Amino acid sequence: MEFVTGNYEAKDMEISDLIAAEDGAEIKTHGMVYSVKSMGDFGFITLRKRNGLVQCVYSKEESKFDMNDLGPEMSISVMGTLKKDDRAPGGFEVHLTEVTILSAPKEAPAINLSKRKLGTSLETNISLRPITLRNNRERAIFKLQEGVVRGFREYFMQKGFTEISTPKIVASGAEGGANIFKLDYFGQKAYLAQSPQFYKQMLVGVFEKVFEIGHVFRAEKHNTTRHLNEYVGVDIEMGFIDSFVDLMDVETGAIKYMLELLKKEYARELAILNVPLPVVDKIPSVRFKDAKEMIAQEYNRKIKDPYDLEPEEEQLISKLFAEKYNSEFVFVTHYPVKKRPFYAMDDPEDSKYTLSFDLLFRGMEITTGGQRIHDYDMQVEKMKSKGLDPEDFKTYLMIHKHGMPPHGGWGIGLERLCMKLLDESNVRVAAMFPRDMSRLEP
Amino acid sequence: MEFVTGNYEAKDMEISDLIAAEDGAEIKTHGMVYSVKSMGDFGFITLRKRNGLVQCVYSKEESKFDMNDLGPEMSISVMGTLKKDDRAPGGFEVHLTEVTILSAPKEAPAINLSKRKLGTSLETNISLRPITLRNNRERAIFKLQEGVVRGFREYFMQKGFTEISTPKIVASGAEGGANIFKLDYFGQKAYLAQSPQFYKQMLVGVFEKVFEIGHVFRAEKHNTTRHLNEYVGVDIEMGFIDSFVDLMDVETGAIKYMLELLKKEYARELAILNVPLPVVDKIPSVRFKDAKEMIAQEYNRKIKDPYDLEPEEEQLISKLFAEKYNSEFVFVTHYPVKKRPFYAMDDPEDSKYTLSFDLLFRGMEITTGGQRIHDYDMQVEKMKSKGLDPEDFKTYLMIHKHGMPPHGGWGIGLERLCMKLLDESNVRVAAMFPRDMSRLEP
Repeated sequence: MEFVTGNYEAKDMEISDLIAAEDGAEIKTHGMVYSVKSMGDFGFITLRKRNGLVQCVYSKEESKFDMNDLGPEMSISVMGTLKKDDRAPGGFEVHLTEVTILSAPKEAPAINLSKRKLGTSLETNISLRPITLRNNRERAIFKLQEGVVRGFREYFMQKGFTEISTPKIVASGAEGGANIFKLDYFGQKAYLAQSPQFYKQMLVGVFEKVFEIGHVFRAEKHNTTRHLNEYVGVDIEMGFIDSFVDLMDVETGAIKYMLELLKKEYARELAILNVPLPVVDKIPSVRFKDAKEMIAQEYNRKIKDPYDLEPEEEQLISKLFAEKYNSEFVFVTHYPVKKRPFYAMDDPEDSKYTLSFDLLFRGMEITTGGQRIHDYDMQVEKMKSKGLDPEDFKTYLMIHKHGMPPHGGWGIGLERLCMKLLDESNVRVAAMFPRDMSRLEP
Repeated sequence: MEFVTGNYEAKDMEISDLIAAEDGAEIKTHGMVYSVKSMGDFGFITLRKRNGLVQCVYSKEESKFDMNDLGPEMSISVMGTLKKDDRAPGGFEVHLTEVTILSAPKEAPAINLSKRKLGTSLETNISLRPITLRNNRERAIFKLQEGVVRGFREYFMQKGFTEISTPKIVASGAEGGANIFKLDYFGQKAYLAQSPQFYKQMLVGVFEKVFEIGHVFRAEKHNTTRHLNEYVGVDIEMGFIDSFVDLMDVETGAIKYMLELLKKEYARELAILNVPLPVVDKIPSVRFKDAKEMIAQEYNRKIKDPYDLEPEEEQLISKLFAEKYNSEFVFVTHYPVKKRPFYAMDDPEDSKYTLSFDLLFRGMEITTGGQRIHDYDMQVEKMKSKGLDPEDFKTYLMIHKHGMPPHGGWGIGLERLCMKLLDESNVRVAAMFPRDMSRLEP
């Protein structure tokens, strides 16, 4: 009988091992060929490993293989000698002695993947994502995105949040409106979840503080640079809050923690992307109404829509607060009731407004959050005032009927946050396989 | 201007603080009322906090409130004196002096949530999940599930895997067959992902080792005790494998790590659930063909279907290996080509079989995995031999055409694994809000 022990270890050297190795060390490693630069009897082969590039050197004297046998995107195993060299990435290069080809492509990719920046249109880049993601810069974007998720998750865990995973096929939309995908569920009408809103509230009654990092689906019928039809939502919900300021406090803490993690653990990617991370100490907070008036005055604008912020207004608020308070983030609080969903808690001091907020970052909304209604009668009334039938929300209303603490939460759109972190202007740059009105593939 | 600092901290005492507090300490904490047991001038109030129960004592002399004002599922803030008492859970109880009611339910729940076991039918339990999850035992199931996910994630991260998040709305199914949900995507036909198979393979070319923990959707048209129509898949895919034994090795390591994490960090839940965790040192591995023959002989059975394992056969293999090798897990390898998908690599030594495996645990398949085809021509041929048109898989085949290392992976169904860990016989017990043919709510 054979047995599997589970003592899995890397079988040859990782980049960290190579960096730690001494000058002259014999090394064995593997990777995919990123580029081959032949200069006759001498040449450079760049090896793409899972977390970086390794510069390898071919020379006719040392190398027992033919450099012409190598080409981009081959999977190879290599042996050689490590030479410290400050000019090479990581401070070393590998003088190759032997190469084993493990797998060879049928055809070289039509575009050069090893350029510092791909240089294709975004359209082409996305259409070829199965291979363009192999470009060092493209790859760094999504490695960094892993770090953003990891930073949030670690912070929530440390603060006593429970991670949850809630249904994506649902019987009714949480956010209302027409931007919801319908599907046939064994003859029943079903929808794709627009947010985990109802479920995360339910789970506040169970775990008090919860978070979910998962897919959300919005059937937005317009192609813009900041909307995706499927994206990753970072969602929290927590009970026993004193006010919605607690929610903003957790968000500020989470962002600070996440940025620190990126600096510590994703320095390689930050360097490749040359991203200037925002510096966050504290985040200013301004009322919706005041913010509107401030920019109207400062920039000599007329207030057209008193109930919502236009994209241009978001940009101007960000601009103003960056200048005045040196902050790239700004909380805008107390949004009008009209523009908030039925579960939003009204401001007891002025029932035209809600105890809610958005977070703006570099000119764009990246979060919507707020305190929710926990009282059953209040929630039923609010539904009716919004033209909704409480009978349609019976399972959701169970929690209000049978007791809920004061609570609230927020959600961040991951790709949009990453787009702004990268200082990019199209959210698709930060979406690995974006879904929009015209794109279902790759 | 107001600022949010992000220095979020718990505002009163957590259970860990209470356990650490000295006898006689003045304490302040909060929670939801789990149960009230009045004995006239004296009584017990159990407080449900986010990660456990706290026994509180009411007495007419000490307590400055009326116990009759309290009822189940109220959210309260309490002050009192801590008394060490070995008979109480956690070794202490809180003698209450003051209670503030933060929120009261409209109606007490129809069922007693504070029983050790709920005692309702599974049907009722699930229909009332928004509140039945508040039961201490129900809650422990899903806290433990968090631990399972956390264990896997930590292990993968330590082993150099990159976490990915891939589209759930897709243009074609990866697993074939009819069990796929269709939806209308702006007039185009789209599907819900049956697995992240294509995408995780694509990302092996980028990050070498990847994992995804996310939703998968299967439109199985039968209600069984072991199928869900939506579940959480724990998926990995890795390149530069020597053989599919590497994949089983990672899985064995991941399971061992996860079980250790549960013992260390989820001891409270394990105690509540009284779960006997499996002991895993090494996992036996047997060929499909040999396993079939072994149980045919041992249990005097006829082999009916030479191409697949019947559920009863899975049970018998588990039974046999538990008895013979004292292992509750067993890998069954080299499944017939007929029963494996088009991306499975054939065994070069016998092309009727594939380089693949299932993992059985306590009588049930919890994983399917194996080496994949990386060669373009071989993959195109295999598609054709399975009656598929390679033209339909053009974006997927990009990776084969432009180079892939030898690679493979596996997937675990989270809820099914948890069901077996809990020694339960219906997967719905381990699904927070299960989706089956007749259930879209809650």
